[in-house]
Amino acid sequence: MWSAAVLTLYPEMFPGTLGQSLAGRALADGLWSLDAIQIRGFATDRHRSVDDTPAGGGAGMVMRADILAAAVDAAAARHPGNPVLAMTPRGRPLTQSRVHELAAGPGVTILCGRFEGMDERLFEARAVEPVSIGDYVLSGGEVAAQVVLDACIRLIPGVMGAASSGEEESFEAGLLEYPQYTRPPLWEGRAIPEVLRSGDHAKIAAWRKQRAEDDTRLRRPDLWERHGGAPVHPPSGAQAKEEDE
Amino acid sequence: MWSAAVLTLYPEMFPGTLGQSLAGRALADGLWSLDAIQIRGFATDRHRSVDDTPAGGGAGMVMRADILAAAVDAAAARHPGNPVLAMTPRGRPLTQSRVHELAAGPGVTILCGRFEGMDERLFEARAVEPVSIGDYVLSGGEVAAQVVLDACIRLIPGVMGAASSGEEESFEAGLLEYPQYTRPPLWEGRAIPEVLRSGDHAKIAAWRKQRAEDDTRLRRPDLWERHGGAPVHPPSGAQAKEEDE
Repeated sequence: MWSAAVLTLYPEMFPGTLGQSLAGRALADGLWSLDAIQIRGFATDRHRSVDDTPAGGGAGMVMRADILAAAVDAAAARHPGNPVLAMTPRGRPLTQSRVHELAAGPGVTILCGRFEGMDERLFEARAVEPVSIGDYVLSGGEVAAQVVLDACIRLIPGVMGAASSGEEESFEAGLLEYPQYTRPPLWEGRAIPEVLRSGDHAKIAAWRKQRAEDDTRLRRPDLWERHGGAPVHPPSGAQAKEEDE
Repeated sequence: MWSAAVLTLYPEMFPGTLGQSLAGRALADGLWSLDAIQIRGFATDRHRSVDDTPAGGGAGMVMRADILAAAVDAAAARHPGNPVLAMTPRGRPLTQSRVHELAAGPGVTILCGRFEGMDERLFEARAVEPVSIGDYVLSGGEVAAQVVLDACIRLIPGVMGAASSGEEESFEAGLLEYPQYTRPPLWEGRAIPEVLRSGDHAKIAAWRKQRAEDDTRLRRPDLWERHGGAPVHPPSGAQAKEEDE
């Protein structure tokens, strides 16, 4: 069974959204397990404190390396083989290929930070992988951990039906997915593209590939260049501004 | 009061994680409001169907433009002035500057897609902004919507204490945040950097600025170049591979 362990100051936030729908049914069916571990359980004083003021001054509190390391060590003993991720905006951006690796492994252990941060020495002293879900700041790592888990859980064998294998989704080929259409064929004067109603499977596949490439180049020049496409040079400053906004 | 409206097939997933901790207290204190709207309420048949098979064939189901537009129109009437976001991996990546704009406005209306997608005509016919929280695929837009809301809510005036103004956080200056340290000063043979214990505020500020720049250049060359830094040319193939992984 794929094992999800979460180290958090708010274990009551789990499974949260993951207790419902696809992930919730998979949890009930025993396709994955959840171990929400309270970090305060590893505090060493009677106030159960886990943080302290930043060295060098500044606002907020910083989570202590000694407490976090004790929590990580305990989680490692309970979930051997799980890679340990720490949710932090300083981390490496999560990608779909990393999600595939995690889903194919024994599970994942996730350390949820507070936004003021964790003592950096933790990352030097333990095999903890700093991970970011995007370039924005959250109130804590708990919602970010749910994003990581949701992305992984849907890929665990048996969770999605065979019909939704996910092979044509965004990022699976390093591109955005092509646009989708469904009935009604005409809506508010807007028709579904003719080719999609042609029944010509080769033509449809070619159109979808072209649209996936065009939309990636236009909307995500960064993704397009990583995919190996020619660099995108916007024809005008205005368009460059729009893309960078 | 800042108004959050969510259009979803799973209204019971809200407030979810946002009902606790910082966002939960702010909700209870009336600093923001939540309106979780069931998309099925806008279905037109007795089976309350909201999706149909993809035009041109393929796995899964696509959410219908007519149903989604009716839901968006109803939400717009209830929450006039709210920008409408649709969570989709085809969308524009969420940034901290967009989060600031949203938090400063009247609120936000968020349409949660299923991963098979929404009929593309919706985006042509309504002012709906496709937004992505990162380059990975989720089982639905609900967890992504909670990410957007969590990021916004903490910036609503009165939600965070004055001590945590967030001005030195990651992305606020287009850079990652500098590393943090706290007590104990020596842990497992690892000391807090000497400068942070010097009491010299100018030196500390200079060290932090340097580390923010160094870490951004090393960990996130993409962010560094957008920040206006010189292009990063990794010295060896091995390092380039590690950065791209």
